[in-house]
Amino acid sequence: MLVPAERLMKLAISELGRRGAPPEWSRLQADLLIEAELRGLPSHGLQRLPLLLSRIDKGLANPRVSGAGKWTRDTFLSVDGERGLGPVVMMTAMQRLEPVAKSAGLAIAAIRNANHIGMLAYYAEATAKKGLIGIVLSTSEALVHPHGGTEALLGTNPIAIGIPTGGDPFILDFATSLVSMGKINNHALRNVPIPAGWAVDAQGRVTTDAEEAKTGAIAPFGGAKGYGLGLAVELLVAMLAGSCLAPEVRGTLDDSDPASKGDILILVDPSAGAGDAALLSAYLDRLRLSRPLDPERPVAIPGDGSRARRTAALTSGIDLPPPLLEKLMALEAA
Amino acid sequence: MLVPAERLMKLAISELGRRGAPPEWSRLQADLLIEAELRGLPSHGLQRLPLLLSRIDKGLANPRVSGAGKWTRDTFLSVDGERGLGPVVMMTAMQRLEPVAKSAGLAIAAIRNANHIGMLAYYAEATAKKGLIGIVLSTSEALVHPHGGTEALLGTNPIAIGIPTGGDPFILDFATSLVSMGKINNHALRNVPIPAGWAVDAQGRVTTDAEEAKTGAIAPFGGAKGYGLGLAVELLVAMLAGSCLAPEVRGTLDDSDPASKGDILILVDPSAGAGDAALLSAYLDRLRLSRPLDPERPVAIPGDGSRARRTAALTSGIDLPPPLLEKLMALEAA
Repeated sequence: MLVPAERLMKLAISELGRRGAPPEWSRLQADLLIEAELRGLPSHGLQRLPLLLSRIDKGLANPRVSGAGKWTRDTFLSVDGERGLGPVVMMTAMQRLEPVAKSAGLAIAAIRNANHIGMLAYYAEATAKKGLIGIVLSTSEALVHPHGGTEALLGTNPIAIGIPTGGDPFILDFATSLVSMGKINNHALRNVPIPAGWAVDAQGRVTTDAEEAKTGAIAPFGGAKGYGLGLAVELLVAMLAGSCLAPEVRGTLDDSDPASKGDILILVDPSAGAGDAALLSAYLDRLRLSRPLDPERPVAIPGDGSRARRTAALTSGIDLPPPLLEKLMALEAA
Repeated sequence: MLVPAERLMKLAISELGRRGAPPEWSRLQADLLIEAELRGLPSHGLQRLPLLLSRIDKGLANPRVSGAGKWTRDTFLSVDGERGLGPVVMMTAMQRLEPVAKSAGLAIAAIRNANHIGMLAYYAEATAKKGLIGIVLSTSEALVHPHGGTEALLGTNPIAIGIPTGGDPFILDFATSLVSMGKINNHALRNVPIPAGWAVDAQGRVTTDAEEAKTGAIAPFGGAKGYGLGLAVELLVAMLAGSCLAPEVRGTLDDSDPASKGDILILVDPSAGAGDAALLSAYLDRLRLSRPLDPERPVAIPGDGSRARRTAALTSGIDLPPPLLEKLMALEAA
């Protein structure tokens, strides 16, 4: 069902506000969820709201704090999120990093004990809009098996990179798993088989049964290379943030445990470098106009698709599944 | 033919020394090539030596300089490599970054105008051995097509990440192309077809003919995600180092042009973070001992394989193709 973004924004802000979030932070958390919907990433959209509200009600998320950050070195901000809302803790850290990145060239925030930060592109885009390069890493519950392995021991460990160019910023955001557990859940719901290679079942056998895959493990993307990259994120985040490694991570999918994953934000000031942003946008245009494999599908640059979807959804409204809409309306009526 | 590493090391050092490289730098450049051979990465090994010597003879590589670095910000070292040897410029920059990374938490060097830096793992391992996290990015000539594209517009853009742990360091090193051009050349040489999906021919058609692939373009690894990552490296390096974008890059595969790719080294001091290196090594051991997909092939951690190959080759010697050995002997006799 198509619902105007404005209407859903108001609903989310109101529910967060009722639970004690200051207006500015309600708006930020709501904006993150709405932006995910607008960009066609519903797994990080409003379906997360009822869970988040329940976490607040149970004291697992505290909407009144923004985290305690301490500079352990000149450019290294170590943050205890104090169970704050993910975007509130992240954006607060970003504000503190900004002047340091501009004067020192780069700066890092390593965050533990914050709630789910949602769609990473949100932060990469925010930094790129300020003229800074942003690199965002995050970890999650153990859902992914090692390359050549069968046990869920790694997080989905997403990476986002935002780079200002002469034109639209370059915004890359991807999980290091081959697919999301949301996609597998969706196949299970529709009783449709998954392609072989997406996942193994609980016994470690390659399966095409989505229901079996839910209790198994998802493959890393890109074989040994993607596995290595996801593992590097796992280690970097745990080491720098002091957060848990995947097998011990809880709290981004449940309302029973504190969030024990970690998040990292690195800002780099491109004006410290010797390059030219205008050359980057000209190069990206050259890629867009290069000969595609399928004449019907032009070569895309990361970020192009979600920008187009956002523009369309701002006009058409956000397409919510009726059960989710009903759930949100019920929250409002409660 | 098996040749002791020691013998090849002596040969490489002598040839570099004869061309004016100071002893310490001859040893460093030779060590990089030998280490690639020992780890089973011959594409970055001694086959590069004759080309490098020719580049020195032609003034495209200067073995007497280590690059001119300038701190454009407190933690940002902008380096003009002045046509120096890749490993000499990189290790000189690393030495300058080290104290800064330790006091500030992190530091970056962005390098243009240096010769081929070879196997990136070399630098990631060097930083990890000093107790620092090292991230290395590099670019190359245009060899890779965009996801959904057919034209060679991206470099192979390798990434290396070194992370100290309680045990052996974690050392990841991979190109963002699906395979190397070396591997395709090797198939062409043996007249063996390549799997569909590795490359397209000059007309942009998927090909299994290795000879056709040589004039076409290699696929990025990992589909859209790997493409996005390789593209991010392309943009980051060009922007920060002020080096060329792939279509304009020359000088790592020829002896006709100055090297116009770029290199980036980021150091992070893990002791600024809140994590525990002993937990990382325990976790990696848990992965190694986890249930493999194929009972005969245990789960591997990036770096394990090359460590094992290195140990074996130090005993057995380095297996060089006879034509390469002859070429090296001829250099020595000249």
